[in-house]
Amino acid sequence: MTDTRHVKSPGGFLFSTVDAAIKTPGRSDILLIYSQREATMSGMFTTNKVKAAPVKLDLKRIRTGKGQAIIVNSGNANACTGTRGMDDAVEMTRLISGGLRLGRDKVYVCSTGVIGTPMPMDRVRRKIPELIAGLGKSTPYEAATAIMTTDTFAKVVSRKIKVDGKSGTLLGICKGAGMICPHMATMLCFIMTDLKIGKRVLDKALKDAVVNSFNRITIDGDMSTNDSVLIMANGVAENEPIREETVSFRTFSGALSDVAYELGRLIVKDGEGATKLVEIVIKNAKNKGDSEKAAFAIANSPLVKTALYGNDANWGRIMAALGSSGIAITESKTDIYFGKVRVVRNGISQGKDRSATNAIRGNELSITVDLHLGPASSRVLTCDLTEDYIRINAEYRS
Amino acid sequence: MTDTRHVKSPGGFLFSTVDAAIKTPGRSDILLIYSQREATMSGMFTTNKVKAAPVKLDLKRIRTGKGQAIIVNSGNANACTGTRGMDDAVEMTRLISGGLRLGRDKVYVCSTGVIGTPMPMDRVRRKIPELIAGLGKSTPYEAATAIMTTDTFAKVVSRKIKVDGKSGTLLGICKGAGMICPHMATMLCFIMTDLKIGKRVLDKALKDAVVNSFNRITIDGDMSTNDSVLIMANGVAENEPIREETVSFRTFSGALSDVAYELGRLIVKDGEGATKLVEIVIKNAKNKGDSEKAAFAIANSPLVKTALYGNDANWGRIMAALGSSGIAITESKTDIYFGKVRVVRNGISQGKDRSATNAIRGNELSITVDLHLGPASSRVLTCDLTEDYIRINAEYRS
Repeated sequence: MTDTRHVKSPGGFLFSTVDAAIKTPGRSDILLIYSQREATMSGMFTTNKVKAAPVKLDLKRIRTGKGQAIIVNSGNANACTGTRGMDDAVEMTRLISGGLRLGRDKVYVCSTGVIGTPMPMDRVRRKIPELIAGLGKSTPYEAATAIMTTDTFAKVVSRKIKVDGKSGTLLGICKGAGMICPHMATMLCFIMTDLKIGKRVLDKALKDAVVNSFNRITIDGDMSTNDSVLIMANGVAENEPIREETVSFRTFSGALSDVAYELGRLIVKDGEGATKLVEIVIKNAKNKGDSEKAAFAIANSPLVKTALYGNDANWGRIMAALGSSGIAITESKTDIYFGKVRVVRNGISQGKDRSATNAIRGNELSITVDLHLGPASSRVLTCDLTEDYIRINAEYRS
Repeated sequence: MTDTRHVKSPGGFLFSTVDAAIKTPGRSDILLIYSQREATMSGMFTTNKVKAAPVKLDLKRIRTGKGQAIIVNSGNANACTGTRGMDDAVEMTRLISGGLRLGRDKVYVCSTGVIGTPMPMDRVRRKIPELIAGLGKSTPYEAATAIMTTDTFAKVVSRKIKVDGKSGTLLGICKGAGMICPHMATMLCFIMTDLKIGKRVLDKALKDAVVNSFNRITIDGDMSTNDSVLIMANGVAENEPIREETVSFRTFSGALSDVAYELGRLIVKDGEGATKLVEIVIKNAKNKGDSEKAAFAIANSPLVKTALYGNDANWGRIMAALGSSGIAITESKTDIYFGKVRVVRNGISQGKDRSATNAIRGNELSITVDLHLGPASSRVLTCDLTEDYIRINAEYRS
């Protein structure tokens, strides 16, 4: 983790953080991201039907494809807070647009934390002048720290690429931890780049990146009301605008997917109470729907996840999860691997419990299921389920 | 629990239990249920596509609608054991049919325990003479004890009814604990009655009972390879055979549902590591599919279940589970109750955290969600999620 402390920002982006004691004092809990030049913006948001007020607001503003600032708070999700919640979200953006003399719809807001409690707006309001005055004083690492909830480490990923002869940077920060499931669960992610790219092309690159990263991770099968991924591209690198189906686009899109995948990996690695990062691979399923269902059924099974925690290569629970997932499966054709050890061949144990146990003892491991029924494969990241997950979530509000 | 130790068997049923050290010595782990008169039988089995060998065998035999004995073992599920597993299941029934001089297809077999390990048939074989000789020496309570795996108490329920002027008894024993989800998860249930009833009518009564009991309970969302419910009706009570659409049928069916519901309740109460029995009630959903999905989404959410463990009336997590369940929901119409305390009205917190916390402090509680969208309602039993669940399941095989 050490070197992420020194990651630099792409050109033209400034950060500021303050301690507003939104949930508990003594830590920074509001972040302001500001682009000195108006940026092209794209976003993806939770598919939960219950959406937090800030998500509803951003969903409207992102249609303009433009923006210049994002205010983010941790400690309170401003979700299930009714019309007051929407008033508060709007006011948070207005405080920033006023202070920075921006059009109001150029400011976005994201919140994460407890659901159902109104934002402590008095404490937020009071801190806005300090927040704005501090722009440029916080590093990306400090920015990532301000948005943490139950995260145990700040998540920062940066990639430098050359596009059209110009150097550009992609910087991603995010927070994750519990409630992570497909479709970007309780996760806020902000990606900043100084490259120049149009709205439509940026949308496409972001969608590709999210599908192959945040939508492929799961911690506990729950999905949040607040998940948001926002990307800002401010063009300070002065490259020719990136166009679709060019080498530049492939370079950019690849780097963006890479940043998103790495952030997703960090989120799972930091799953609440997790001790292991687990990759579930399904091979040769009848079709894509089946391989997806199978991968998530295993990745979300509490019995599989607790067995992994206990270093128990309990393939029977994997078989049971497959069988109940509703996919096409022929037991007598199914192979299961822990790491590279094939513990089950054609549905039968190969008596390799000891080598399988060694294969899962570490803090990163893979489980592969070969269904031998067709051409489809899927890959999902998950983690083990531990007593600490229970402790963290039983005590979260208190 | 005390009085279940003295529950008596319905007429004509004998039990025997032995210690065959199938997984660990020092406890009874094989049960033989024997009806002195050939019984009408009906059964329902796991819908998991991966079915244990005994389930596959019983599925064939139950077509005859007749039977006289059931051999049950704990400690080994005989699942994912290939052709050898089927040979072993067949041999277990043959050892009993030989010893008791019954037609081979009059004997059923059920297994529960570890998946993927062959049955230790040498130890089973050696104990069969003792098992058969012991018929009549074990009580229903001892029978229920022999089939326990991670259960912490034996589950026995009995009801006496009058049918057609004759007294009859229904006796149910079952084992449950982890992996309990809709469709009868890792659960074995045996119901014995001395009443006389035809196969088709018995099928109907059993199906009604299961739909309203075992299919409405969930502990961790996983479903097992071995779940089985078998009922034997031996007619020793000498009543006129119970026919459909009669008072006798309604009395019988009601009592059977009652026995099954009570057994289901005991299973959830004894959920692995559980400290609370929780009833989830969905009211006024748009349609039945929605109310079912909503009830199970809440009942299976790890975040909801850990919050309940921590006595945290965290309705935000309920709202998030509803929102991600895919059902029709209007946030501004939704009410949530903990016990009788309406904590959320029209989607907004009513500031009743303290009284809500009191409502969930006990070891039995209910959560009601009123969606105000239509006529459908559903009811599901679940439990909280605790560190002990993790501990039990991380150590289950070791």
